[in-house]
Parts: sequence; C-alpha cells; structure tokens
Amino acid sequence: MSEYQVTSLNKIIRGAKRGTYNKEEINKILDDTFLCHVGYVWDNQAIVIPTAYGREGDTIYIHGSLKNRMMVNLLEEGKASISVTHLDGLVLARSAFHHSANYRSVTVFGNVRKVEEPKEKMNALECILNHMVPGHWDNVRRPNEKEFNATLVMAIKIDTASAKVRAEGVIDEKEDHDLPIWAGVIPMKEVAYEPISEPDLKNGVDIPDAVLRYVNNRS
Amino acid sequence: MSEYQVTSLNKIIRGAKRGTYNKEEINKILDDTFLCHVGYVWDNQAIVIPTAYGREGDTIYIHGSLKNRMMVNLLEEGKASISVTHLDGLVLARSAFHHSANYRSVTVFGNVRKVEEPKEKMNALECILNHMVPGHWDNVRRPNEKEFNATLVMAIKIDTASAKVRAEGVIDEKEDHDLPIWAGVIPMKEVAYEPISEPDLKNGVDIPDAVLRYVNNRS
Repeated sequence: MSEYQVTSLNKIIRGAKRGTYNKEEINKILDDTFLCHVGYVWDNQAIVIPTAYGREGDTIYIHGSLKNRMMVNLLEEGKASISVTHLDGLVLARSAFHHSANYRSVTVFGNVRKVEEPKEKMNALECILNHMVPGHWDNVRRPNEKEFNATLVMAIKIDTASAKVRAEGVIDEKEDHDLPIWAGVIPMKEVAYEPISEPDLKNGVDIPDAVLRYVNNRS
Repeated sequence: MSEYQVTSLNKIIRGAKRGTYNKEEINKILDDTFLCHVGYVWDNQAIVIPTAYGREGDTIYIHGSLKNRMMVNLLEEGKASISVTHLDGLVLARSAFHHSANYRSVTVFGNVRKVEEPKEKMNALECILNHMVPGHWDNVRRPNEKEFNATLVMAIKIDTASAKVRAEGVIDEKEDHDLPIWAGVIPMKEVAYEPISEPDLKNGVDIPDAVLRYVNNRS
C-alpha cells in the first residue's frame, strides 16, 4: 500500500488540497531532517518536546535516558504522535490575511513499543545517528555495554500519517493586485556551515567524507 | 518577576544544567522565529501541529480559521503548551553515545482565551504578522471585515515556561580523546534568501525596507 489510510485522526480538513497521504512523499519529508516534535499527555495536558529520530520503513525510532518523562509517558500510553516541519519560505502577500508560509510538514500517528532485543536496539541507534548524518555511524565509537543499557529506545510503528505541503507564490484577492503594495516570497533554508573540528583531535584525523557530504548537500 | 515559577509541569529534570526559567532569555528565544509546535489532546491522544505565533509581553497569540480543530480543541481545554526550537548545530562526538545538537528550545504552558474584543484582536493579528517580519504590518492591506470575522484568534497567557540551551563543543569520555576518530560541530542556521517578487506587481513598487532588513539579518 503506497498511501496511509485516512481516518478521523489524520484527515486533513483545513487546506485539504495541500494534503497528501502518499507514503513516498511522507518518507521524503521525514528523511530530510532528524528533529521532530513529540506530543504526550501528562496530567491531562498535551506537552510538546523536540527530539532526534530516525526512520526505517514504517518505523520511527527515538531514544533518551531511562528516566525521560516523555519516553516513560509514551510507553505507558502505548501511542504517540510526532510532527516534522520544514520551513521553505515566507509568503508575503499584499493583504495581511493572505500571508502564509511555504513548508513541508508531516504528522505521524503510531503505536509505541520499547525496543529491547539487543540487535534491533543497536540497529535503531545506528538508524537515529545515520538519520542525522547519513553514513556517519561507521566513523564513530559504538555504544559500550554501559551506554547501551543506559539508553531507552522506542519504536513508533506508523499506523497512519499525513503531510501538508505549500510550495507556491502569493495568492492574493484579485482586486488587491492593483494596490501599490509589494508581494513576494522569501525563500528559507536550514543551512550547514563548515565543520569546526575539536581542538584536541589526534594527528592525522580528517573530517570524514560523510560529514563533508552532509555539509555540501546543505550549504 | 524575572523568572517563571518552577512547577512539576515545566521543571527540567534531564540535563537540568542546560535549563533556565529566565523570562528575558525565554523571550529572546521566542522572538527569534514565528513558527511553533502546539500540542492538544484529541480522543485521549496528544496531537502536534506547527503554526505561526506572535508574542507580546507574557501573551502568545495564534490564529486560524473558525473551524480549525486544534484551535477549537484548545479553547475547550482552556490550556495549551507550545514548543519553539532553534537548531544551531550538530554535535558529532567520537562516540555514538555523546552525539548531540546545539539548540535553543522553549516550552510554554498557559491558559487559553478567545480574543474577541476588536481592538485587541486587530493588535494580535498585527503582532503575529510582525513576529514573522518585524515592521511589515505597516506595509500591507489590513484585514477587511469579512477576513477579520473569518479569523479565530487565541491568546495563550504564559503561566509558566522553561528553556533549554546547548551551545558548546563535543563532550566525549576522557579515554576516547586518544582514539583516531574525528569530532566536531557542524554549525546550522535557518537562512533567508533574496526575496522573489511577484511577477505582476504595480510599476514602481519596491521591496519594503522591513523585508530587506529581515533578509539581511538572516543571510
């Protein structure tokens, strides 16, 4: 199935024409960053926390310390919702009302499971790190037993999801086009700059290709 | 009072040394973007949605259409939590375990009220637009009656809040410093590019100073 099922949970009502349930499009948006916002219910209130994630197939992995309130809560609830947003531009219309943004955003709903099987857990940690900088896992020292045991890893199996994308110019009222008011789009992008190496690296240690590639792709 | 009260809701437990409750620092982080993630409870589940906001004093304003599920839900609940996150860098350690990010993030908790008094409502719309591009409200056509009435505006009075900031280099285990592994920080920034004017602007309409200033400050 190449589309997520539309339920009352993920159905896009406002701005439905910008919505999509296509898995390929959703995965592309999810794979273009490693930072999501997770929501959980605590004391009858929704709390939102930014955290790193990785994606493998229909599974989102997140990790944290064993006592992380968000993680412990999500495991108790058994379900989670995460939101991923890219800001691509400010859409500045002639009218205040038609101001908008160009963006790509995804909301994911899924069931939560603690990852305990050691091989899957190590794979999940690799997935999260490589989601940040593709291929960089192979360059680093892997978790030792103590670090491994101190990390809580959660899998969110995507049950359903939706994306909303705006990627166009200003949409003003027809009669406003004659006004002597400027309108246009300011393109926005999250940019990576030249890596700053730690001062005490061992002699002869260069910046890895995976890191150079990442910076190159985002500069 | 220059600090928000610490309650069980906003108390930072993990990484407490990176936490602050200082209003000035929190406001600075809030004022450096216009995009937040709002959480609300729907059918016993937390849902996270990106939206634009403005800040004036201890009040966050958000707006949407009259039927926006998130807005309607928040008004029913009477309280809201929003999260604002700036990614400032990727922190790539020698060890997988010590990978991190440099960031500034704020979580706000507050009581929700529908803004109905026309003058406050118009001020709130001005605040939201100027939070996106400071000073740009004065350049645009203001909402007419129909647009004004079709917009739902909500005020979130900040009850408490907290910020977490990481702004430093790699922190690796002492014994890992001798490994022949690269470590460093990739600085990240949300950058604005040259505005793309709409093709059908009236003759002689230039890009406003507020827009040029915005781009200049973020390029």
